[in-house]
Amino acid sequence: MQFTSERRLDDGVLERDFTLGRNADSRIPGILWTPASDSAPSSAPAPLILVGHPGGLDRMRPRLASRARHYATQYGFAAATVELPGSGDRPRLPAVEQARADLRRAIQAGEPVSDEVVDALVLPLVEQAVPEWRAALDALLALPGIGGPVGFEGGVISIGIRLAVVEPRIAAANLFAGSFVPAALVEEARRLTVPLQVLLQWDDEGNDRQAALDLFDAFGTKEKTLHANLGGHTGVPSFEIDNGARFFARHLK
Amino acid sequence: MQFTSERRLDDGVLERDFTLGRNADSRIPGILWTPASDSAPSSAPAPLILVGHPGGLDRMRPRLASRARHYATQYGFAAATVELPGSGDRPRLPAVEQARADLRRAIQAGEPVSDEVVDALVLPLVEQAVPEWRAALDALLALPGIGGPVGFEGGVISIGIRLAVVEPRIAAANLFAGSFVPAALVEEARRLTVPLQVLLQWDDEGNDRQAALDLFDAFGTKEKTLHANLGGHTGVPSFEIDNGARFFARHLK
Repeated sequence: MQFTSERRLDDGVLERDFTLGRNADSRIPGILWTPASDSAPSSAPAPLILVGHPGGLDRMRPRLASRARHYATQYGFAAATVELPGSGDRPRLPAVEQARADLRRAIQAGEPVSDEVVDALVLPLVEQAVPEWRAALDALLALPGIGGPVGFEGGVISIGIRLAVVEPRIAAANLFAGSFVPAALVEEARRLTVPLQVLLQWDDEGNDRQAALDLFDAFGTKEKTLHANLGGHTGVPSFEIDNGARFFARHLK
Repeated sequence: MQFTSERRLDDGVLERDFTLGRNADSRIPGILWTPASDSAPSSAPAPLILVGHPGGLDRMRPRLASRARHYATQYGFAAATVELPGSGDRPRLPAVEQARADLRRAIQAGEPVSDEVVDALVLPLVEQAVPEWRAALDALLALPGIGGPVGFEGGVISIGIRLAVVEPRIAAANLFAGSFVPAALVEEARRLTVPLQVLLQWDDEGNDRQAALDLFDAFGTKEKTLHANLGGHTGVPSFEIDNGARFFARHLK
């Protein structure tokens, strides 16, 4: 892990860009936000929130930073994210690009999206991204001042499911039911055991409501909460940022 | 409105029992909780939360008081409740008692509960309770230190729907989708326009999940949030008390 730039923001939060990996072709960019040292509880290492996103860190940075700064200033959490495979400056994944084109074509034609297209779009992303997030976790938890426990939130829900199931350091997950989920991941969701909060946009034009409710039902954890809000995919109400933070505050201790 | 007793609780909250109405046969008992004067913002009258319940104030008092004290000490809200028609010390309503017996019989026999039974159980309660809650509101808002706006929460959801639709002083409603709702009230729900939060217990043994989701869908308001939690009818997680308070804090200003 190498830091490539750092900025002290006006609320005291330190925003650092980093890259993971030595090989120029496979380097993974990421961002880390840490609370101003005087806002953290004395000497206790900060819990860490891994902040998911749909891919494209440059475009997503303002929204991610806004969440991370809320977490840091109000709760003393550190937050970090890494670029997804095939997104931003990283090399494209031709099979995923093809599946994305097939998906767009089906939606524009008003046709149902086939399981094959969903699998081709999401499964390779999960397969590649989850080990990368785990590697990022290794590097982040080795930094001074960051101690875990770790929460995961947002982004591609299938990545969150797999990560929360296979990575024992994830202690709580706040997921957004806003994208297609392969049947295999719905099955994996049954094995998830950490406390879970799920956001659902009730009128999400690109997301089947019943499929999202079925997924919520499938999660195997004993403690799960669904927050459904009126509105479309991008209309998540701003008060859910703090709801998410409070969910993590209950579980990351 | 006559106060019949008062207690200063150890957190400074003033709990007062009252009755509404002059006629001994039709007197309605109620309870009012108000914040210690030094915890309220200087001179500003307190917003008021009307706290619903399933009937039987004596039995419900500890739970209601616990919520009211949280609202008063953490948010400076006043809270009040009145006994339901046919419950507690009030005269029984024979038709409703009959419907309740029919309901129990159907459930014990594993039969579907007919629309007729639901209507007979709930509609008379709504017809009588809603004017009573409005009369209570008249009396409560005439007291010094209580100024509104007013929120309604919990209890029999059909009463909450009707009240929030017909009573313009209700500015926000936090309802519990935990009981049978007559088709006529689902239709009324389409006319509800205030901000709304709905609690749903995902595995509520006495409540049809799909009916509750359909009701949430029917509400006509532009701002609505569903909080679904794993567990049965009585298993609402304790963190939802503060979630409800924060919902009111956003809207009762």
